[in-house]
Amino acid sequence: MPRYRITIEYDGTSFVGWQTQIGGDAVQDHIERAIKGAAGETVDVKGAGRTDSGVHATGQVAHFDLSKTWDPFRLREALNFHLKPAPVAVIKAEEAADEFDARFSATARHYLYRVLNRRAPAVLERDRVWWVPAELDAEAMHHAAQCLVGHHDFTTFRAVGCQANSPMRTLDTLDVARYGQEVHITASARSFLHNQVRSLVGSLKLVGRGKWSARDLRQALEACDRKACGPVAPSAGLYLVKVDYPDGA
Amino acid sequence: MPRYRITIEYDGTSFVGWQTQIGGDAVQDHIERAIKGAAGETVDVKGAGRTDSGVHATGQVAHFDLSKTWDPFRLREALNFHLKPAPVAVIKAEEAADEFDARFSATARHYLYRVLNRRAPAVLERDRVWWVPAELDAEAMHHAAQCLVGHHDFTTFRAVGCQANSPMRTLDTLDVARYGQEVHITASARSFLHNQVRSLVGSLKLVGRGKWSARDLRQALEACDRKACGPVAPSAGLYLVKVDYPDGA
Repeated sequence: MPRYRITIEYDGTSFVGWQTQIGGDAVQDHIERAIKGAAGETVDVKGAGRTDSGVHATGQVAHFDLSKTWDPFRLREALNFHLKPAPVAVIKAEEAADEFDARFSATARHYLYRVLNRRAPAVLERDRVWWVPAELDAEAMHHAAQCLVGHHDFTTFRAVGCQANSPMRTLDTLDVARYGQEVHITASARSFLHNQVRSLVGSLKLVGRGKWSARDLRQALEACDRKACGPVAPSAGLYLVKVDYPDGA
Repeated sequence: MPRYRITIEYDGTSFVGWQTQIGGDAVQDHIERAIKGAAGETVDVKGAGRTDSGVHATGQVAHFDLSKTWDPFRLREALNFHLKPAPVAVIKAEEAADEFDARFSATARHYLYRVLNRRAPAVLERDRVWWVPAELDAEAMHHAAQCLVGHHDFTTFRAVGCQANSPMRTLDTLDVARYGQEVHITASARSFLHNQVRSLVGSLKLVGRGKWSARDLRQALEACDRKACGPVAPSAGLYLVKVDYPDGA
């Protein structure tokens, strides 16, 4: 059975998240229905990142098997036709090796978190950013964030319900930079814990407001205690932007 | 009576346009109601650009008079509070000279038109761009556009119902450039005719697809005939981004 790999963009606002739910209103459900509509086959689609409700993607990756061979260009067109009017689009479709697994083959996941940092509320970017009206010191946030990079116990920064066996993760990068009225936080790692990026952003916001020092952030990490985390940042600002695979695929 | 000048951002999707309508669902109506709510005064708000339904703004400018003097910072905050939940925000509020007129004092208006030029439909940018799936030659569009710059009779490129006395306008710049999967058209002039930017963009798209040569575009201009215009581009891609006033204000 030929295996296909697709790269997906979605507006997470109206979905219950990536993963299949009773009720069928997950991104995965919409894609499985589009495959059924396009190819007449009932398949399981496996995604690289199980994004939560409200979280967006510009580069989610998923794989599935079909019994028939498809031209990737035609497959993408057919899926996009059947996905309408859901705010989900297949950006790219490719044939993949039999052993390719969107989730387990991934070597890195890259997230972007967008903060709109101005007095006036979000309008054109509503549901696309976290609106923080009080001024943030992006440089202080970036400086403090560096203590989180590396191999750590991230118990403080994961959801109570996180189902990962271990709270240990290796954070490859955590960068904060201002672009005009937006502050962007980018985070890369082989894998993340549940709510990890939003927990990190929520705590970094306290640093940006001067309520926490870099030392407070380090102590929150070292506490290995969920109660030491700052208020979790809302889902609307978070984007899964890219997933890396071996051989740069 | 002190005069105030405000700079406004809005998502035009859900409005009937800038200008007051019976039914009260124009951007101007929402702002006048917010002023009534904040200051208790019934005023006429005058805007620099009468954008159509679906057209957005990141830098619309308007003015109005109040009988009481307000701190501009507090005025902005109060207006934004009363504008909720409409997708309209006051970015900036300032005191203005008595003779300042948002419409008649303007020396230039700057518009941006965003085309999403990729096979996959718009998702995160739905209602924010014109989706053109077939590849556009942005360089050819830019080259051809230059014949439209300057002082011309723009009868071809204005709506049949345009109420301006004269079809003569001076187009200061009309630039086309590609930014990844987007093609941006920027247009600047002291003033525009009704539907002028969308008419220009619709015709430039034919150039970008190779259906019109630069010569065809010039002939369309010279025809001074509305029937010579290409199909008008949709409103969703258009943004009023900036209005200039004397002394760089």
